[in-house]
Amino acid sequence: MPKRSEAHLQARRDQILAGARRTFAQYGYEGATVARLETEIGLSRGAIFNYYPNKLELFMALTTEDEARALRTWVEQGFEATLRVIANENPDWLGVYLENARRLRTDASFRERWKSRNPELEQRAHEYLAHLQEEGEVRDDVPLEQIGRFFGLIADGVALQTSAGFPVDVEPVLALVRDAIAPRK
Amino acid sequence: MPKRSEAHLQARRDQILAGARRTFAQYGYEGATVARLETEIGLSRGAIFNYYPNKLELFMALTTEDEARALRTWVEQGFEATLRVIANENPDWLGVYLENARRLRTDASFRERWKSRNPELEQRAHEYLAHLQEEGEVRDDVPLEQIGRFFGLIADGVALQTSAGFPVDVEPVLALVRDAIAPRK
Repeated sequence: MPKRSEAHLQARRDQILAGARRTFAQYGYEGATVARLETEIGLSRGAIFNYYPNKLELFMALTTEDEARALRTWVEQGFEATLRVIANENPDWLGVYLENARRLRTDASFRERWKSRNPELEQRAHEYLAHLQEEGEVRDDVPLEQIGRFFGLIADGVALQTSAGFPVDVEPVLALVRDAIAPRK
Repeated sequence: MPKRSEAHLQARRDQILAGARRTFAQYGYEGATVARLETEIGLSRGAIFNYYPNKLELFMALTTEDEARALRTWVEQGFEATLRVIANENPDWLGVYLENARRLRTDASFRERWKSRNPELEQRAHEYLAHLQEEGEVRDDVPLEQIGRFFGLIADGVALQTSAGFPVDVEPVLALVRDAIAPRK
């Protein structure tokens, strides 16, 4: 396949994902009708579903990409950087993130597929945390799992409030988190 | 108006709110079509909109009630009790809560109305926090506003994860929160 054609395919995929993200963020999964997807993406349903077989696959492509990106930031730059990124995310990104929570709750087959998406990155995120504890940067009188879960709650809280239009100043939050996880004297 | 009729009106209102909650939680605001509302509620659109003028008012009735209930728990029983209540909430309650975040983001007129719903309870929640700080139960080297915001993030994180089908064990979370907000020595 010639190079130009590959670039073209990628550009089309990017166009479809960007338009689909706006549609899901605005209307939710159920409200994202094929007609609305066509309008936001600027392509016919035939063209769209040539790249992604159906609406669920299109949605999964977005959320899988989002989760991989968040985990990569976490593994490469740590929790504090991840929280700053989330607080500055595009509301459309966050809108899809919230919609994902609903699908996980209401769609059992979606929940099943969600489990096995980024296992390698998840493992690396766990190792990162274990490393912090070994280095004495995080308290070791609390199981690692609980520290990780605590980080996750804060991150989700910031995502939810930012997406609802209440910007979060993350620095004072991080100061409190540091006190919560600091090694005990 | 005779008593029996009042009871009947209230029973109808409860029936409508319960069915509407299931519909919004399952399909989102946009996906909650009038036909779906009729099915879940078990009444015709004429009957439903006799009690609530339109879909937005119906949705607002739910979210206003939810916020008042959460604030009341907070004022009467404190943050820890509130977090335990959220972690044990019905997923339908939480689904409406998340849907509320989307409407706040995408609907400016909704956001405007949201601001002035439970001002008296909000004031009491603030006073409760100030009282804790005065009593020396919460650190006083961090502005009250930041402590309140921190509580809010944790609560929203628990709401999001619980609603997505990942139950949160709140006791270890509360232990970390206590360390974050404890008075410094």
